Amino acid sequence: MNYDQVIADTVKTNNSKIVLLVMDGVGDIRHPKFGNKTPLEYAHTPNLDQLAMTSAVGRSIPILPGITPGSGPGHIGIFGYDPLVHTIGRGILEAVGIGFEIKSGDVATRCNFASMNDHGIITDRRAGRIPTETTMELCNILREIKEIDGVEIIIEPGKGHRFVTVFRSKSNELGALINDTDPLNEGKAPLDAKGQNESSQFLAHVVNQFIQKGFALLKDKRPANAFLMRGFSSKPKIPSMLDKYLLESAAIASYPMYRGIASLLGMHLLPAPDSIENLFKSYVECRQKYDFFFIHVKGTDQAGEDGDFEAKVSCIEKVDQALPILLEHKPDVLAITGDHSSPCAMRSHSWHPVPTLIHSEFCDVDDVRAFHESACNTGSLGFFESKYLMGLLLSNAKRLDKFGA
Amino acid sequence: MNYDQVIADTVKTNNSKIVLLVMDGVGDIRHPKFGNKTPLEYAHTPNLDQLAMTSAVGRSIPILPGITPGSGPGHIGIFGYDPLVHTIGRGILEAVGIGFEIKSGDVATRCNFASMNDHGIITDRRAGRIPTETTMELCNILREIKEIDGVEIIIEPGKGHRFVTVFRSKSNELGALINDTDPLNEGKAPLDAKGQNESSQFLAHVVNQFIQKGFALLKDKRPANAFLMRGFSSKPKIPSMLDKYLLESAAIASYPMYRGIASLLGMHLLPAPDSIENLFKSYVECRQKYDFFFIHVKGTDQAGEDGDFEAKVSCIEKVDQALPILLEHKPDVLAITGDHSSPCAMRSHSWHPVPTLIHSEFCDVDDVRAFHESACNTGSLGFFESKYLMGLLLSNAKRLDKFGA
Repeated sequence: MNYDQVIADTVKTNNSKIVLLVMDGVGDIRHPKFGNKTPLEYAHTPNLDQLAMTSAVGRSIPILPGITPGSGPGHIGIFGYDPLVHTIGRGILEAVGIGFEIKSGDVATRCNFASMNDHGIITDRRAGRIPTETTMELCNILREIKEIDGVEIIIEPGKGHRFVTVFRSKSNELGALINDTDPLNEGKAPLDAKGQNESSQFLAHVVNQFIQKGFALLKDKRPANAFLMRGFSSKPKIPSMLDKYLLESAAIASYPMYRGIASLLGMHLLPAPDSIENLFKSYVECRQKYDFFFIHVKGTDQAGEDGDFEAKVSCIEKVDQALPILLEHKPDVLAITGDHSSPCAMRSHSWHPVPTLIHSEFCDVDDVRAFHESACNTGSLGFFESKYLMGLLLSNAKRLDKFGA
Repeated sequence: MNYDQVIADTVKTNNSKIVLLVMDGVGDIRHPKFGNKTPLEYAHTPNLDQLAMTSAVGRSIPILPGITPGSGPGHIGIFGYDPLVHTIGRGILEAVGIGFEIKSGDVATRCNFASMNDHGIITDRRAGRIPTETTMELCNILREIKEIDGVEIIIEPGKGHRFVTVFRSKSNELGALINDTDPLNEGKAPLDAKGQNESSQFLAHVVNQFIQKGFALLKDKRPANAFLMRGFSSKPKIPSMLDKYLLESAAIASYPMYRGIASLLGMHLLPAPDSIENLFKSYVECRQKYDFFFIHVKGTDQAGEDGDFEAKVSCIEKVDQALPILLEHKPDVLAITGDHSSPCAMRSHSWHPVPTLIHSEFCDVDDVRAFHESACNTGSLGFFESKYLMGLLLSNAKRLDKFGA
């Protein structure tokens, strides 16, 4: 018996409401230029600190110690799906990240416009990083190719030189075990697509025709007269939050990537608000309709990746100021965490465990006076893999029976 | 996907240097006769404490909670090899422990000289614990048996009544699925060797002939007129540190056991220095040549096993005094830990989690003022299985890409 089976065996419903507030990349490390404090320590957060005084705290480990997660595995984990089991392909993540609604059976790839010389050799894998507007024009040209061998071809521009191609078929199973066509180094020709099984061979044949036709259409469009395809993948077979936890779930998030991941897990997508205050108000308005609310704050991660300590502090303070909106209509269980840390000093995601707080009637109360990294080191949640967070939320919501007699 | 695959998927190289300083058996428990302090608390360690103030600390669990490791699993774990997957046979550990260079295909066993009566019954499994010198003489006698059925027989004396026999063949595969010949109780005859598969049956046949010929040679050598063989094992198939982590690795250790384990993992063995100061100087001299340095201090474990609190304190203080040698040529990542605890009050290895420190530019800094057990309880590394230590070191060295997009 494994953890998922224990959850399946013990989960039940009631009328409780659970809110999981994800401050993306909120975890950080102490910064010598800011009094050797982390942004959570440095920020003025009376509401968060007050909440911490009546909560259980700890630190969650996104994947396993020392592993830095991307946004996909980071989020998959906090929703209780083992990120080493439920891997989401890069093509799917890219499609989801630009707001494309992936259907079961679709195969998605992320594509780069590239430059190719007369001998078919790639001279620039990013086509001189052409602007998004040019990519939109070029995608419109490629959209002339609507279908090959009964497979529908859907093209969506992304940022800069990137776009997504989705293959969809009503009649054929489309396999995604197909190599990247990107030769990874300039000075080489794009690779042919090859499938590792029958359904992938079928799609690889379609892909090669698409490339041939596409290159013909782009012939005079230097520097973007070619494209490279990577991360062929299908929509993952993953149980919904409803099936797994019996939770009617809703996502309140403004960024396509997180809306997309939520949608892969069967969450309802609520309208995308434009401020932290409105994220919380959206919960208040819809709180009768769902059991579980995923609220996503992007600013903390963005500031971390920009190395902007003060912006991160400011985003944390905005969350703190808006917190009373949530607390006035307090859910039965309120959890605050991040999908990973994004230390300003590193300007990137990191492996550092994420400060985490769970507040409920029976959460227990720790000896902490504030919500930040070192306070959470000593909390009663300890250090735990984030894939166990949902189990903790369900038990705090009294939605898990005891295991065994 | 498992942890090893995540590491393989994300590992990359750069110019960083990593030093892993292992103070063998350094962890301890509070001792009523020494102010209720552990040796790390009791020792005067200004340099270690200063380092702890700018480091991340925690406690590593050698195998799993409550499990006391031997030196083999203890070390295998801190190098990131799951000690429950990569078990090293006792014969191999014994051979390695006396500095014997095991080759692929060798089968090694650890052997005891024993006393046997005229009826072939073992009367003393340790031959009255004969001294090492006698064992050396007896081994020279056994060395008359150089080869049986094309299998070379190599005999190396160990400490006291112990020796190692290694079987080596150019023409035959030698299986190691062979039972111990030690009947485990006095009053019984030695057991015949039996193989569990074809290649082991072949070697068992050789072993039985070796025992017969050996006993004939020892006939008049009472009390040591027989020997018992245990732990038949082959060199484990284990990926090297270079293959697993892309790290050119070197071991700075003076005891054969640790040099042997390092060599099984493909580490280069640097000359064995005679003092802690010289261990550290050896790193300084060779630091340009390797990426990763394993420095092994034995004194802490020895003192623990001797129950000598003051000797353990003294060894810790010697490490502290020599530490500036390391710090003057500070590696990008410096970790200090043990392979297990060896509490003086227990005079043995133990299961207690091991104080661990990681210092790097991005390690994060905890609320601790000293390096010892209870300080480490509150650190940002938390309590973690030691098999994850290498992942933490690699990520601190920026040698791991993020996992997933």
